[in-house]
Order: sequence, then structure tokens, then C-alpha cells
Amino acid sequence: MPASAKPVIIALYPIPDTIPNYDQLLDKYDVLEYQLLTPSDLKADMQKEPYRSAVAIFGSYPGFNPIGGLEEKSLIDALPPNLKVIGLCSAGYDGYDLQHLSSRNIKLCNVPVDKYVAMDVADCALWHVLSGMRKFNSWDRLTRTNRTTTNNSHTFKIRDEVRNDFVKSEEKQEGFAFGHVYHGQPVRRVSGKKCVIYGYGLIGKAVVERMIAIGMDVNVVVRDKSKYQDTNVHFYSSSSPGEVQKATLEANVLVVCLPGGKGTLECINKQTFDNVSSDCVIVNIGRGSCIDTEALKAAVESGKVSHVGLDVFPKEPIIEPYWLDEKDVNSSSNKFYTTSVTPHLGSSTVDTLEFASFTCIDNIMTGIETGKFKNSLHDQ
Amino acid sequence: MPASAKPVIIALYPIPDTIPNYDQLLDKYDVLEYQLLTPSDLKADMQKEPYRSAVAIFGSYPGFNPIGGLEEKSLIDALPPNLKVIGLCSAGYDGYDLQHLSSRNIKLCNVPVDKYVAMDVADCALWHVLSGMRKFNSWDRLTRTNRTTTNNSHTFKIRDEVRNDFVKSEEKQEGFAFGHVYHGQPVRRVSGKKCVIYGYGLIGKAVVERMIAIGMDVNVVVRDKSKYQDTNVHFYSSSSPGEVQKATLEANVLVVCLPGGKGTLECINKQTFDNVSSDCVIVNIGRGSCIDTEALKAAVESGKVSHVGLDVFPKEPIIEPYWLDEKDVNSSSNKFYTTSVTPHLGSSTVDTLEFASFTCIDNIMTGIETGKFKNSLHDQ
Repeated sequence: MPASAKPVIIALYPIPDTIPNYDQLLDKYDVLEYQLLTPSDLKADMQKEPYRSAVAIFGSYPGFNPIGGLEEKSLIDALPPNLKVIGLCSAGYDGYDLQHLSSRNIKLCNVPVDKYVAMDVADCALWHVLSGMRKFNSWDRLTRTNRTTTNNSHTFKIRDEVRNDFVKSEEKQEGFAFGHVYHGQPVRRVSGKKCVIYGYGLIGKAVVERMIAIGMDVNVVVRDKSKYQDTNVHFYSSSSPGEVQKATLEANVLVVCLPGGKGTLECINKQTFDNVSSDCVIVNIGRGSCIDTEALKAAVESGKVSHVGLDVFPKEPIIEPYWLDEKDVNSSSNKFYTTSVTPHLGSSTVDTLEFASFTCIDNIMTGIETGKFKNSLHDQ
Repeated sequence: MPASAKPVIIALYPIPDTIPNYDQLLDKYDVLEYQLLTPSDLKADMQKEPYRSAVAIFGSYPGFNPIGGLEEKSLIDALPPNLKVIGLCSAGYDGYDLQHLSSRNIKLCNVPVDKYVAMDVADCALWHVLSGMRKFNSWDRLTRTNRTTTNNSHTFKIRDEVRNDFVKSEEKQEGFAFGHVYHGQPVRRVSGKKCVIYGYGLIGKAVVERMIAIGMDVNVVVRDKSKYQDTNVHFYSSSSPGEVQKATLEANVLVVCLPGGKGTLECINKQTFDNVSSDCVIVNIGRGSCIDTEALKAAVESGKVSHVGLDVFPKEPIIEPYWLDEKDVNSSSNKFYTTSVTPHLGSSTVDTLEFASFTCIDNIMTGIETGKFKNSLHDQ
């Protein structure tokens, strides 16, 4: 087994060959693909060449999460002796023992969200808000599933199918259905309604811009409102229960744009749901842990929350049937969808993948060559 | 059969009792509900009291369309002798012989789209654009249908299910799927891409505002560009083939915001589809007739058009299975969705219904009381 002439980089996932620094990478480094299977396999394999020579690990988005992260000291101790850096494409880095990595002189570098990535995530939030307020994703499904005997669908019949309480009578009406009622729930205009955004990082800002563009009146809950000025929105401090109550009172839409962690754990809870409007739309593109799941389920079942739009989930990567199945609401006779769901792909565009992969490889190469690690999580 | 003390208004559909002029209406008029069944039933019934006394007909949105419109002279001749006005809630009024109605001194009044109704329709267009560019409606469906044995769904597995061509290898890859590929099609960032809007009425304008808010570079095709100035968009005249070509060249998204009729018949056609980008998203919230359906189907099947978002349809109210079923594209091995569909409910909110019903009743009452008919289609 001859020693490689070039330093070794372990790629836990494929590196896109379309990134601008790909040729430079292959010129300077030996890139070895390695598939994570179990912690014990990893421990054993890292003791053997060629992996043992590695100076860097490219972790892409999942990093070590598929084997439960990198919190176990013995796992970190088993990493290659000359390893200098682990590069992630994600902004998030839950599941790493930064301190123990530091003690081994291994840097963990991430790729912070930039304003373009933030736009991708905000577009996902916007899609969920529109799906929730106007029930578009449910209409899409109904139009496909409710066919006539000739396998066609029919615009009037679809709208008729779910109106239940058309206009002034509770009896089933013959004739025209406008489509402004979805299983007894009014379908409301978005413009002029009240929206509250939790979080005002780059993603929160991009969401705010979109909510303003669709005509919503926007409140933003931040840690300290004295830090912000924007005449288009109203800021409220999360440290003051009174302010939070004002911000969320009678809100028609609530969008969670917060990171995970202890500071935001279940900060959206029963009190929040008690406070919002009577058929509020809740959207989460932050982290599942930000919402008290049981309180949310109770609010859905009582009809207080009319729609939940989720790109992130309480037990991610698992998505429980609760968020996927049709359900009874408020003891209605029909089951229907009360959610829109996307499998955590708020930032999943080819554009983001290229940007993040390029930046991650740049973090690795520049760090190894200069000793100065960009986006190092140890220096923050 | 005693003559009514109040003038009679025939309501072909229920009048919402929540509109501000509802009490006034009932004070001054006898409102009789009448259900359209067939043209010959209508002819017979209108000769009898109490219908024969009617001075007005409230047509709501569908008007006489359920019995084939009001183009037949004998049908118009059979309307009540003192009928002064037919009020529609819709802006569109296809299927009425205005001239023959004039000869009988019957006014047809509509409710023009206002800027708030335009926002509702534009929100529908926006939802279809996001569904098309990011495949969100398809991800929603996949997340619900692709379950594990325990009936859960799983974020990684859903994304993995449809990537096919992850990153650099055409082989099926183990491991992480980012969600940036949907059945071999790249999922692209919306921001920075090129959008072309056909039509710049109130709806087109509201769509333009939303496309700018999500970061798109917007071209607008209008009849005469010299009439418009807006530094945020580029205008092109539809009368010049060279300009239309420039406007649509390499467009990633095309949104049709045109009315129906001869002037716009199939103005989106093979030439358009040849011209747009290689995986263009086509959205139609105008009228089905604006697009050459066969050319669109050919563009979908070749993969040139990656997604079709429709709120209006070629054979409306029928929606053919073509727009609803999964399909092979470009001889791929998997069938998948290439559409998002909503059953013509761009403006279907309780807010629009109330606004339009109020205005329609106001058109009727003011006209009868003053002889001056607001929103009369005979005076335009």
C-alpha cells in the first residue's frame, strides 16, 4: 500500500463535479469516498490506510448524523491522527462535541446561510402559507382524486364536493359552488390579514419580504426589539410575555423561522395557540423542536388551527402519520387534509447545493493550506 | 296569486346574507330563488307569476352558463316582460347576446376585478409558480404516499425516492439525498431566474409584483408597450414577433394572465415553447383558450416544459385526465406528476364573494331605482 503523493480527503458523500473548485481539488488532493455504516465500522476503518492518512473529511449536509452524530469521545478519538478539519455543507451542526474535537485539534466548519439560500427557504415558507390560507395543496389533491365515471375531473364538482356550508344555508345546495369554503372552513383572502414571524435572521427577513409582498400586515418576534428598525413591520421582544401576546393576538398566519436548541424549545405552545385567530395557519420551516407538538395537535383537533404547513418535523427524519393523514376536525363528518408537508427541503435547490459544496471545499482547502479555517465553529 | 307589493328579483343562486346591503335588499324587494334546469323549463317558468313580474335577475358567478348561456334569441325573448337588468358577480360575460338583450332593454351588469380580487388570483398564480419551480406540490404528495412499514414517512427516504441522478453518478446512490432533484429534473432556485408574464391588467400587475418579490427578472408581454412604464420590469409588444421572441427567450417561468376570446386564442403556442428555457414552468390563470393545448402536451412530453400549473383548463369545466395523472416524460422509467391543478378558484375567497355579491346587488338596486346602470356592459 504505497503512500499517496497527495493529501487525502475522505468524502462521506459525493462532491458535485460542477463546482468551480472541483478541478483544483482533484489536482491537490486524493478524494476517497467512504460510506458511513456504523460507529464501530468507522472506528475500525479509520485505523487503516488509506483513510488513516486523511487530513480532511467532507461531510456534505448530513455529516455524521446517519450514525448518530459525533458526540462520543471514543469515536472522535478514533478519527485519523492527522485529521485537521471536518467540513459540513449545512449551517446546522447539532450532534458534534466541539470541545472534544478542539482537544484533538480538529476544526468543524459549516456553511452559513447566505441571502440566496435564505430566499430558497423563504419560498418554501411562502408555499406553505399560500397552501394553508387558500387550501391550494388540498384542492390539487381533490382535483386528482375526485373523478367522474369517464375519469375526468370537473371544476364545479370539486368545489361542490367540499363546501358543506355554502353561503346561507346549512343544507346541501344544488348548483354553483364558488370554492370559498373548504370542508366548512372559510377560504380567506391573504391580503390584509395578520401574520406573525418568529425569528429575523436572513431567513426570517426573506420570509417577511414575501409576506409583505402578498399584502399581509407583519409582526416579528425577536429576542430584543431595540436592535431592529424597519418601518414595514412591527417588532416585539420575545422576553416580554405581554409583547408576545400582542404580536400573536388574532394572527391569521404564524411562521416559525427559528433555529433549534434549548433557547427556542417549544416556544410556540398552548399560550400561542390560544392567542391566534380562530382558524390560524401555522408554518414551520425552522426546527420541529420550536413547537410544543401536543399543544399543536390539540389546536388542530379543536379547529383553532386550520392548517399546519411543515418542512421540519418533531421527530425528524421520521414524519408521523398524524401530519400526513386526513383527519376529523371538530367532530365533523368528513375527514380531510389539514396540513401541507415537504420533506425538509427548504433550501434544496441545485443552486444551494453548488454554493454550499463549493464553500465547504473552499473551507477545507484554504484551512489546510493556510492554517486559517474559514467558517470554523470553534472560533464563534 | 296576489301581486306582490314589492318588485321581484329572481336569484338564480343564493345571495350571501352577510353583505352590507342585504337588509336593504329584503326591505325593498321580493327575492325569489329559482333553479335553472333547462332552457325550455326557463322559457315556460318565466311566463308564470311570480317570475313574470321580475325586474331583475341575480346571476352570481355562473349566470346562465349551466344551461348554455343566453345567446339564443328565443330564450332572451322569453325573459319576463318588465325585466330591466341581469346582474353577474363575475367579470367575464361570455355567452350573452348583448345586442339582443339591448333590443329588449335589458341591461347586463358585471363586477369588474378590483385590485384586491386581483391579489387573490395572483396568489393562486404564485402558488403554481412555486409548485412548478420547486415541485412542492409533488413533494407533498410523495411524503404522504411513500410510507415505511410502520406507516411513517421519512424525509431522507422521500428525497431519495425521486433523485435518480444524484450529483455525479447515474447509478443509484446509497446515502444522502438533498432533495434538489425530482425525477431527474433539477430543482432550481426561483430567485434570479427569468419570468415572462402575458397580460398586464390588474391581475397581471399583481402577479408581476409577486414575481419581483421572489427575486425573478420579469418581462411583460402587452399589446402596446409604449403605454407602460415601470422600471422594475421590461415590456414587449405582442404585435411584434421579434419582441415576443425576445421576451420569452430562455424564460424559466411563463404566466398567462390574459382574458379569453378571439384576440388571445392560442397565443401561447409551439413557437413560445420552442423559445423558453429547457425546463420551463408554464402557469395559466387566464383562460384555457389562450394556450395551444396540443403544443403544450408535446412540450411536456419532450421534457421542454417541466411543469404546468393550471387554474383554468382547455375544456373547462371538464378537466381531462391528461392534467391529473402521472406520466412518462422523455421515455423515463418512472411516471410522475408534471402539473399542479386547482379547479378555477383563483379568486375564490369569502372576501371576493362578499365584495362581488354586494357590488352585483348594488348594480341591480341602483340601476332599477335611478335608471343609471353601473357596470353595464352595454355602455363600454
